[in-house]
Amino acid sequence: MDAFASEQPPVRHILSSSQFDRAFLDYLYTLTTTIRRFDKSREGLNYLRSLLPHKRAMLYFTQPSTRTFLSFQSACHILGITASEIRDASTSSERKGESVEDSLRTFSSYVDLIIMRSPIARLCERIATMLDETPRPVPIINAGSGPDEHPTQALLDIYTLARSLREMGGIEGKTICMVGDLKRGRTVRSLARLLTNYDGVKILFASPPSFRIADDLRQDLSASRFDFEETTDFAGAIAAADAIYMTRIQDEYEGDNAGAQDYHRYHLRAEHLPMLKADCAILHPLPRRDELDPRIDQDPRAKYWRQERNGMWVRVALLTILFGIDDRVQLPDL
Amino acid sequence: MDAFASEQPPVRHILSSSQFDRAFLDYLYTLTTTIRRFDKSREGLNYLRSLLPHKRAMLYFTQPSTRTFLSFQSACHILGITASEIRDASTSSERKGESVEDSLRTFSSYVDLIIMRSPIARLCERIATMLDETPRPVPIINAGSGPDEHPTQALLDIYTLARSLREMGGIEGKTICMVGDLKRGRTVRSLARLLTNYDGVKILFASPPSFRIADDLRQDLSASRFDFEETTDFAGAIAAADAIYMTRIQDEYEGDNAGAQDYHRYHLRAEHLPMLKADCAILHPLPRRDELDPRIDQDPRAKYWRQERNGMWVRVALLTILFGIDDRVQLPDL
Amino acid sequence: MDAFASEQPPVRHILSSSQFDRAFLDYLYTLTTTIRRFDKSREGLNYLRSLLPHKRAMLYFTQPSTRTFLSFQSACHILGITASEIRDASTSSERKGESVEDSLRTFSSYVDLIIMRSPIARLCERIATMLDETPRPVPIINAGSGPDEHPTQALLDIYTLARSLREMGGIEGKTICMVGDLKRGRTVRSLARLLTNYDGVKILFASPPSFRIADDLRQDLSASRFDFEETTDFAGAIAAADAIYMTRIQDEYEGDNAGAQDYHRYHLRAEHLPMLKADCAILHPLPRRDELDPRIDQDPRAKYWRQERNGMWVRVALLTILFGIDDRVQLPDL
Repeated sequence: MDAFASEQPPVRHILSSSQFDRAFLDYLYTLTTTIRRFDKSREGLNYLRSLLPHKRAMLYFTQPSTRTFLSFQSACHILGITASEIRDASTSSERKGESVEDSLRTFSSYVDLIIMRSPIARLCERIATMLDETPRPVPIINAGSGPDEHPTQALLDIYTLARSLREMGGIEGKTICMVGDLKRGRTVRSLARLLTNYDGVKILFASPPSFRIADDLRQDLSASRFDFEETTDFAGAIAAADAIYMTRIQDEYEGDNAGAQDYHRYHLRAEHLPMLKADCAILHPLPRRDELDPRIDQDPRAKYWRQERNGMWVRVALLTILFGIDDRVQLPDL
Repeated sequence: MDAFASEQPPVRHILSSSQFDRAFLDYLYTLTTTIRRFDKSREGLNYLRSLLPHKRAMLYFTQPSTRTFLSFQSACHILGITASEIRDASTSSERKGESVEDSLRTFSSYVDLIIMRSPIARLCERIATMLDETPRPVPIINAGSGPDEHPTQALLDIYTLARSLREMGGIEGKTICMVGDLKRGRTVRSLARLLTNYDGVKILFASPPSFRIADDLRQDLSASRFDFEETTDFAGAIAAADAIYMTRIQDEYEGDNAGAQDYHRYHLRAEHLPMLKADCAILHPLPRRDELDPRIDQDPRAKYWRQERNGMWVRVALLTILFGIDDRVQLPDL
Repeated sequence: MDAFASEQPPVRHILSSSQFDRAFLDYLYTLTTTIRRFDKSREGLNYLRSLLPHKRAMLYFTQPSTRTFLSFQSACHILGITASEIRDASTSSERKGESVEDSLRTFSSYVDLIIMRSPIARLCERIATMLDETPRPVPIINAGSGPDEHPTQALLDIYTLARSLREMGGIEGKTICMVGDLKRGRTVRSLARLLTNYDGVKILFASPPSFRIADDLRQDLSASRFDFEETTDFAGAIAAADAIYMTRIQDEYEGDNAGAQDYHRYHLRAEHLPMLKADCAILHPLPRRDELDPRIDQDPRAKYWRQERNGMWVRVALLTILFGIDDRVQLPDL
């Protein structure tokens, strides 16, 4: 771990999934798996809490969120970090006409880390750049920026894929089927980009024609000679997949919902289970609606609930890296 | 205490006042009184905080509440438990069409306990049953479920009654007058049911005819041969009472408010004080409106403010039981 | 410090800037500067956190606020105090018709301190008086009471003035220019009153005629023979000033906004910088709108961002005084 720390540049902010390479992913996931072992005992948990009790974080979530919010908040609590929150811009100074830059700089006066989710694309980058020019810059974590990116979601998705497929040799060479609203789902964008770090992976994008992946993603994947296919053959795609990544319609964003009426043809139901590979991993970033049948929850191939909890642990690992204490996580004999 | 722990089945959830018997009540109240002694010193409070700092709780309160919320939150803090909160479903994934089961299962991924208050009757039971079938069940506490039940309120009411009447020999054989909106007040339902654990108690239900207790409660009390009387004679009832339990009109629930115009005849005013027994205890679950005159606050028989603070301590005791650390509360020489 | 503690009456509540004399200010600021030194190390921060972990505070903010809220919340966290919050009266019992007195007394049942911001003038005093008559009074801090007072803001403003002017011999004898909506800005009222504690200070009030200071403040300053001048000559005033205190239009309060159209003539822009004294300190309570040009942020005379962070430290100092542990802050060799 020291070796890594000396070779890698320190991570200042977490803004985009494009900032991570394969070495970082491997390091992060080893760290995450180590940290999860601390959860097994009261002593382990108390040790984690002793690492960062002198730090304060701000959760600035002006876009509705439950699980990302709670996952980050819990990750902070696990490390002893005190978390403040702004979830409603109407209780804040923005109502008094303050610019978002001033609001965020204000938060940076009081805390040591800002975790932000916002409907405004690229706001995180703008704020990180602004803060880096002040005498007291604090790290920014992008917890979802509009239709744009959701890098920590992609990190936890890959971690769950890697864990679920580890007895089949890991992610390399696998066929991953991504289903649903591929056009507007930011998790799809972030995840597909991160998967280009793994050799021999093929993505099957299964969606109604009107929900196909966006042009920029298609071009990026083509440019990196990544193997992918777009299809409307839902049944064929899920049968061929080593892992299925289901997503819901993102109709909270403006835009064309034409195609929603075909969406039910892309729902994964208990009836499909016999068609899937015996070791196929089923993931979903949640929340779900009708596209993922709750009767599947009992099937051992359903990984989405542990995917959710993995998210908390991946975020704990990221926090230790951001605060430069990741080398204190590996304790002998704990 | 060990004796108790070995004889009683462990408490997994707190869902209904009907799950408690007299042995449990006696144990809980002894424990509560012990815990309150820790509040007298900085060392005592620091010891309590050292008991559960590795635990995280979720306060899921989708129904407005101040005191129950703060009381539970403070109880968590006293034991070192980190408390997260959801108070507004509009900031949550339910806005994205998630089922309440999925939302609660999500919370259970991040925390070790869910305390929930909801306008939906029997939601707590449904969630507790659902979680018990998952690999990571967490305890559920019912902090008020619609017009249905509010078991921890009943527990703190009985504790306050027992403390207030202890120099008169305790609750046994006493006449308790319950006044107000007896039809819709869930505290009345939970409290009346719990009082059946005490011998020789008589309840006088004083209310306008349209606010009489509901049929199911009447039938339950009759079936258990419990001594009760329904009356419109407010003055007679309060004069006969060893304790008076005032309640407000529950007009936040839908339903018939006919009878509200008679309600003022069931207000306890300073002018009534000379009519009450010298040792009569006056309780109210609060918040109050006009039914309880603030001039009574100064009278030594007014117990409602300490009833409120008792609630916090009873909840601390319940949390130690739920997490199985109640045996660590009795320290020598602290 | 012990000397001070024995001579001064203990501070029970923080309600108005008029309760502070020069001796208190000097003591508070020495304490604040000492506490800021603890921020330099993990050990210092951990020591501060060990001072009050057995205490709980309520932040009752029914008026929108970001920075005052976060500043107090962070101050609590720095001392280990657990902070609960009520930011929206609609989630509370006031919706059930509870009086504000009952609500606040309820909070006092659960916590050890109430920090309140409210649109109701003099509510803090009323609540402090009410609580002082109960068996369990807790301290009240006024964190802004309508158009009335904002004493902790004035305390941090003076601290920032004193720090900024310390190489010029401190606040005594200086000319302070206050600009903007002087009529309704409560920080202006509290700050001007506190400045009367410093000898030889002159205030220049620069504003459109319709935003001049209120009659009561003018009379108070005249009665205490304080040197001040009201002017519409913005350029002349800022050129003469040793410190400039900018404020925004308080249009969230009802009342006459006539004069707002002249307000732009009282904006401080980058073009004004050459006119200012070389050591002039520029302050602003923030949030700002157009009255303070963001291009000024880079100028070394801009003190408003550190003013914001100073606020947190002044509040930490106040909390140690309220809880009577200020004598534990001065540690040797930390």
